[in-house]
Amino acid sequence: MTQQARAVETRAAIIRAAADVFGDLGYGGASMADICLAAGLTKGALYFHFASKDALALAVIDAQHERALALGDELLHSEQPGLQVLLRMAFELGRQVRDDPVSRAGIRLTMESSNLSTPVVTPYEDWMAACEVLLQRAIRDGDVRADVDVAAAAHFISPAFTGVQVVSGVLTGRADLVQRLVEMWSFVLPSLVVPDQWERLSALPEEMAAAWG
Amino acid sequence: MTQQARAVETRAAIIRAAADVFGDLGYGGASMADICLAAGLTKGALYFHFASKDALALAVIDAQHERALALGDELLHSEQPGLQVLLRMAFELGRQVRDDPVSRAGIRLTMESSNLSTPVVTPYEDWMAACEVLLQRAIRDGDVRADVDVAAAAHFISPAFTGVQVVSGVLTGRADLVQRLVEMWSFVLPSLVVPDQWERLSALPEEMAAAWG
Repeated sequence: MTQQARAVETRAAIIRAAADVFGDLGYGGASMADICLAAGLTKGALYFHFASKDALALAVIDAQHERALALGDELLHSEQPGLQVLLRMAFELGRQVRDDPVSRAGIRLTMESSNLSTPVVTPYEDWMAACEVLLQRAIRDGDVRADVDVAAAAHFISPAFTGVQVVSGVLTGRADLVQRLVEMWSFVLPSLVVPDQWERLSALPEEMAAAWG
Repeated sequence: MTQQARAVETRAAIIRAAADVFGDLGYGGASMADICLAAGLTKGALYFHFASKDALALAVIDAQHERALALGDELLHSEQPGLQVLLRMAFELGRQVRDDPVSRAGIRLTMESSNLSTPVVTPYEDWMAACEVLLQRAIRDGDVRADVDVAAAAHFISPAFTGVQVVSGVLTGRADLVQRLVEMWSFVLPSLVVPDQWERLSALPEEMAAAWG
């Protein structure tokens, strides 16, 4: 293995170890010493790759955001109707948060980022933008009513998802997250869907949960 | 002032100072030394009242929860219809979080409580229970459809509120919280309200925001 390949691998291993520590303890509770221990590295080796806890927290946020963006990119380019993709995004993102430590830690750090020198707003803005695009597509598909304020809807759906996954985390360690997302969508869809399409679309939350939860 | 009155006052002053520090830095980021400094007390004096950071965080959560319960109690006993009271609860709780440092810190600590030795689930459970009671009252009032699953609705409304206030905090320091709560309710009400009552009730989010936001 070349020296460069080894450095890339070490960096990835540090990010995984940091994600475990940040995910358990949050930004404030985690120390560089904890992360050294989790990564099995000396302090010198850790600081060679990341100059500070801030830099490491931002790297975890970036790694999570990259995975979420890859998911978002795949979904935005899928051939499925906009409303299906919007729900699928929520269930697949929920699965990432539930099952992948880097995603879980990244979302937690983003939420806690008022502690960092620069609050991290891009992930929220990106998700709201993606929701808006999908809602506009769903209007063109004839599934969502043309008079829905898509900016306002996106600005509710994204924070609602955030709250549902946080509270599911506190109350059940996210064991009930899929069921909570089904309920979330069952209470949001009636304000979006074209009445004539309701019968066809009302079971969408359960269908998406079965496929992607 | 008696010694006991002085002790009560010092305790309250410590909780206010701790709320400022926890509210800014979160549980993990705050230290007992920061709180001593903010309270203007020696470490000995602080530890006389609170044996640990955990104990102090729980006291802030209790203080916030007491204020929220007092609000909840007042609202549950009000003569207004259930749906009005449900929305009013969200707007008044939003105002508490936005304007009162102890409430803000308490809600943040509750969210971060997976760090504490015992996760704090009572506030979530209490709010969900209050939502359920109010939705049942709203069904009896003839405003909410009898076939609404009130447990599921309560289990969505409460986390949705949590997410909306957290994201409003990250993106705007809660400056846009009232507007975001208006939007939240405008997207949730259609799935709750009896169709015949829609015209009368559709402006409720704006009315409640004007009165209690």
